[in-house]
Amino acid sequence: MYQKEKALTSEQIFDGVVVKLYRDEIELENGERAVREYIRHPGGVCVAAVDDDENIYMVEQFRYPFGKALTEVPAGKLEFGEDPEQCGRRELKEEVGAVADSFEYLGCIYPTVAYDTEIIHMFLARGLHFGEQHLDDGEFLDVKKIPLKEVYRMVMANELNDAKTQMAVLKTYLKLHGEV
Amino acid sequence: MYQKEKALTSEQIFDGVVVKLYRDEIELENGERAVREYIRHPGGVCVAAVDDDENIYMVEQFRYPFGKALTEVPAGKLEFGEDPEQCGRRELKEEVGAVADSFEYLGCIYPTVAYDTEIIHMFLARGLHFGEQHLDDGEFLDVKKIPLKEVYRMVMANELNDAKTQMAVLKTYLKLHGEV
Repeated sequence: MYQKEKALTSEQIFDGVVVKLYRDEIELENGERAVREYIRHPGGVCVAAVDDDENIYMVEQFRYPFGKALTEVPAGKLEFGEDPEQCGRRELKEEVGAVADSFEYLGCIYPTVAYDTEIIHMFLARGLHFGEQHLDDGEFLDVKKIPLKEVYRMVMANELNDAKTQMAVLKTYLKLHGEV
Repeated sequence: MYQKEKALTSEQIFDGVVVKLYRDEIELENGERAVREYIRHPGGVCVAAVDDDENIYMVEQFRYPFGKALTEVPAGKLEFGEDPEQCGRRELKEEVGAVADSFEYLGCIYPTVAYDTEIIHMFLARGLHFGEQHLDDGEFLDVKKIPLKEVYRMVMANELNDAKTQMAVLKTYLKLHGEV
């Protein structure tokens, strides 16, 4: 049987720009004690933006932990107290320059359950209208328009590795083409 | 155009049991400098273990960052230099008590591309033979046998949130039932 865990103490180890790291002493139901190290994260949002010809808008950007550029769905971090749909609309406008008539919730993922509180909410955006990209300072990325069917193939063939992108693409494709 | 980033300095901020945190100063191609905080992780493996009646074996365990128990596919961390399939077979045996005739690679996910080097490799295990569970010290989890079709429905309905579990289940279901 799994054991519930309760905090005895909690200490912030590092308060970085992106990473807020904590170290808690905890007690299990059986009285055993242990330490849990984890990141507290405000959560994020990603958007599968699909146009009327069933192209999806992807962004390519350098990801330092992997030392290379990755192709992902547009995404961003929630601001404190921000509504996920509002965040998704903001990121879609900033990164792709698009606004959407409809925003449908696709569910969420917990990327790193063992040591990170991050939750990423996923949306499907349709009815797209395009304007200008407005990137944040220090943000550099390329927008790519790719047929959704091709991106689905790439996910199944292990050619796109970002987790949120894989899930948002599969859920979108299954939603639009009927579930198996 | 995205900008490549190269390290100027790298400093270890925290050397924990699970979390190894680094802070690097980097330079972009345009000469701008910035800081990147990230976790170095050895990577992991997860296993969709499906029996001849198309049940999948899931594990339920308490996940401290979320303050609740989550239902996931069996998984574990790679040891240094370990072959992913070997790690998957070890975790399946420890957590579920099963060995498998076949182990097929389903691809990998990068759960947290912005600030973590973790890669999770996914496998489909079939031809299962059952023995005893052998958990590590301090590891508590419950094994649940659930029809794959039901777990697929739960993923689509946003009832299972762990990212690796969602991807391993969708890829397994699409593999066994024909892609859309």
